[in-house]
Amino acid sequence: MLEALKQEVFEANQKLVDFGLVILTWGNVSAITPDRQYVVIKPSGVDYANMTADQMVVTDLQGNVVEGDLRPSSDLMTHLELYRAFPQVNSVVHTHSRYATAMAQAERSLPCYGTTHADTFYGRVPCTRHLTKEEVEEAYEKNTGIVIEETFRVKKLDPMAVPGVLVRKHGPFTWGANCKKAVENALILEETAHMALLTEQFAQQHKQAKVYQAPEAPQYLKDKHYYRKHGANAYYGQK
Amino acid sequence: MLEALKQEVFEANQKLVDFGLVILTWGNVSAITPDRQYVVIKPSGVDYANMTADQMVVTDLQGNVVEGDLRPSSDLMTHLELYRAFPQVNSVVHTHSRYATAMAQAERSLPCYGTTHADTFYGRVPCTRHLTKEEVEEAYEKNTGIVIEETFRVKKLDPMAVPGVLVRKHGPFTWGANCKKAVENALILEETAHMALLTEQFAQQHKQAKVYQAPEAPQYLKDKHYYRKHGANAYYGQK
Amino acid sequence: MLEALKQEVFEANQKLVDFGLVILTWGNVSAITPDRQYVVIKPSGVDYANMTADQMVVTDLQGNVVEGDLRPSSDLMTHLELYRAFPQVNSVVHTHSRYATAMAQAERSLPCYGTTHADTFYGRVPCTRHLTKEEVEEAYEKNTGIVIEETFRVKKLDPMAVPGVLVRKHGPFTWGANCKKAVENALILEETAHMALLTEQFAQQHKQAKVYQAPEAPQYLKDKHYYRKHGANAYYGQK
Amino acid sequence: MLEALKQEVFEANQKLVDFGLVILTWGNVSAITPDRQYVVIKPSGVDYANMTADQMVVTDLQGNVVEGDLRPSSDLMTHLELYRAFPQVNSVVHTHSRYATAMAQAERSLPCYGTTHADTFYGRVPCTRHLTKEEVEEAYEKNTGIVIEETFRVKKLDPMAVPGVLVRKHGPFTWGANCKKAVENALILEETAHMALLTEQFAQQHKQAKVYQAPEAPQYLKDKHYYRKHGANAYYGQK
Repeated sequence: MLEALKQEVFEANQKLVDFGLVILTWGNVSAITPDRQYVVIKPSGVDYANMTADQMVVTDLQGNVVEGDLRPSSDLMTHLELYRAFPQVNSVVHTHSRYATAMAQAERSLPCYGTTHADTFYGRVPCTRHLTKEEVEEAYEKNTGIVIEETFRVKKLDPMAVPGVLVRKHGPFTWGANCKKAVENALILEETAHMALLTEQFAQQHKQAKVYQAPEAPQYLKDKHYYRKHGANAYYGQK
Repeated sequence: MLEALKQEVFEANQKLVDFGLVILTWGNVSAITPDRQYVVIKPSGVDYANMTADQMVVTDLQGNVVEGDLRPSSDLMTHLELYRAFPQVNSVVHTHSRYATAMAQAERSLPCYGTTHADTFYGRVPCTRHLTKEEVEEAYEKNTGIVIEETFRVKKLDPMAVPGVLVRKHGPFTWGANCKKAVENALILEETAHMALLTEQFAQQHKQAKVYQAPEAPQYLKDKHYYRKHGANAYYGQK
Repeated sequence: MLEALKQEVFEANQKLVDFGLVILTWGNVSAITPDRQYVVIKPSGVDYANMTADQMVVTDLQGNVVEGDLRPSSDLMTHLELYRAFPQVNSVVHTHSRYATAMAQAERSLPCYGTTHADTFYGRVPCTRHLTKEEVEEAYEKNTGIVIEETFRVKKLDPMAVPGVLVRKHGPFTWGANCKKAVENALILEETAHMALLTEQFAQQHKQAKVYQAPEAPQYLKDKHYYRKHGANAYYGQK
Repeated sequence: MLEALKQEVFEANQKLVDFGLVILTWGNVSAITPDRQYVVIKPSGVDYANMTADQMVVTDLQGNVVEGDLRPSSDLMTHLELYRAFPQVNSVVHTHSRYATAMAQAERSLPCYGTTHADTFYGRVPCTRHLTKEEVEEAYEKNTGIVIEETFRVKKLDPMAVPGVLVRKHGPFTWGANCKKAVENALILEETAHMALLTEQFAQQHKQAKVYQAPEAPQYLKDKHYYRKHGANAYYGQK
């Protein structure tokens, strides 16, 4: 059943590797059927190199395996909770991509520092609160989904205008109207998190320039290098 | 029409991907004809992997599409403004490359810290002022071009000696006498922005060394490692 | 003898290069036979590109070469010491991977900042004490193994729950029940060390935000960019 | 003439690209003949992708072109000065590799923070003084070589024990007994400069931990993640 969707989910999982968002087995993509009856998700702990489309697992919305010989991703219950909470979301992605994960570990929301961010995320990408000890021990993955939904409810965020979240001490989840969008949002979240750290570091250096900024090159060296490559007396390169 | 220039613009766009300056659809290259009547530019939002040379869009200097079935890049009006302002510029490039964008987000000019920079940019690469709310809402892309031109005029910079700019909160534009040069300048701006942050961080560590610098290795460990690989008693590697 | 194990050790060594953990000849993998009589290890200082499985060196537990024309890795005695100290360890890996090595050079243990770390390492990955001058000069590689064992003994750590260590001023060693696990642990140690530095830098920026944090983008610019790509009036991309 | 040496120099130049040390035309390798009469060097400003072995330029020790249709690298006179000053050096490499260049721009020597450094460089890799205005304007490239020699003479350094230097505001030069060694030293200098910055940043975070260090993950979350993957109740992955 659902062979086309399995293929789509399979390719989306591979795309995470191509985009450099996932090493080893550290990520998963799922999609929900248009009637919102079934979810197709990556099997748990399977190497990307050997994975095939027909290994994708089909479950119902309670997490029961409907088709497939393998266990679904251990994060399945988080995905299901997001499909329940966000009716416009048709695909969910989880990665441990480096910068988004580090920002989640630092327990921060991702600020909007420029147009690269604003093109995709309307405002900050929020960071969830800590799960309590009870929430972790009782139903960890399901409660991860619930705390994401709570974050969007409390902050009055539209999940389609801010299609991603940073789960505190864990890492990013993103989503979208289809697998392609959800995976692209995972890439954009990683890229904007990376740019955000660089932006803050550039700003830090500027503010503290009186204390330790590097001196610029002397003018005579600038002249020498520019004019050995440019203008009438240039001698770099071939005639 | 302009098949050779379309091919050149197409290849220059692909080069941005090869150089690691662009992910997804985040960049665009254009070129102007020698008579400065027509501009060839990448279509908007088209995947690089599936793009073909004959999809390049031809427009006039007012931005009317003269040939092509697709919409031109949404940044077209910025490119046109630059061709109007800078008569020696024959190609314009826009990317969201990571370090140059972060520097633009941090609202900084790029200082000349060494000869790598001086080989291409004669002095600082400037950062534009903010566009006003009115400028953004009235004609955003056109006004982006105008504020670039204003920056060079106010700072009395020669756009051929400083072939690039950082648009505040947005990212880099570069240009040149042809597509190849304009794309190379995009790469060099990214590389020198990256080196600038590293330079400042190295300088910061040095200035604050009394507070937290790492200790060097003990002399007996230096001796051990150097001499197990070098000299008469070396035992690393094969005889 | 031990052709299958040689092949496994050979492939594990190549995997270090594929994973980007090793440049030049800077790493080595070994494995021990189930009866714990023999160890198979990479030859010293041989280029990965030209290396073959049958060049792997077989030694006994005293470090005597039992089979092979080449010298074993100069770190052999460290590996042997770890096999002696940790009876459940069947494979040992040493690299100079960038972030784990830098953390070892900074003389720090790797804190557990999130679930990526907790999935593999139960608590901090420890950093050893300095070897003394005498320990370095007398039997450097053997004493490196002994100081690792001492670290786990003093800190009461289970080497199978914390399958790695940072050797002060040197770099990481990891291990596991087989070569695949030991190499994966080398990759995970590098990735979590990288994420740890980023986590600390994100946290630093947050705590010092009042001093030098970058300002967010103005609301009208966020609106412009979000709505030129999304909603009824979007004009980015194709219709 | 010297076809074998041309081939060796050509391949060494390509290796700089393979190692990620050079973009565009930003680097050059040369070698000297055993009789120290001739030097083979990369031509100036030629793209690596189209370069061929027979384009390598042969010069004498005064810099006169003895064979070749192209201009030699504009850094030729620096190479020649190094061959004159350091009689054991048979190959010289210059790059603008990112971290070594940034350290040179920050006007710092590279400290020895660990065994990775000590394996190749016996002590610090020095940074030269500024060239004066007169030195730059009179004979820039030749004086760059002279100031390198001066640095080693004043600091009493053996160029074979410290086979590299950071030229202030410019970038690294390395050398060796042959092209392979000289290129490897360029890679090692870049890698150890990268590790040095990371080491200092890890140390900085540690020293300032009371001010802004990220908190570790809560114990119940560590337990959850470790034990969902390990031990009797693990449910990650396949049975």
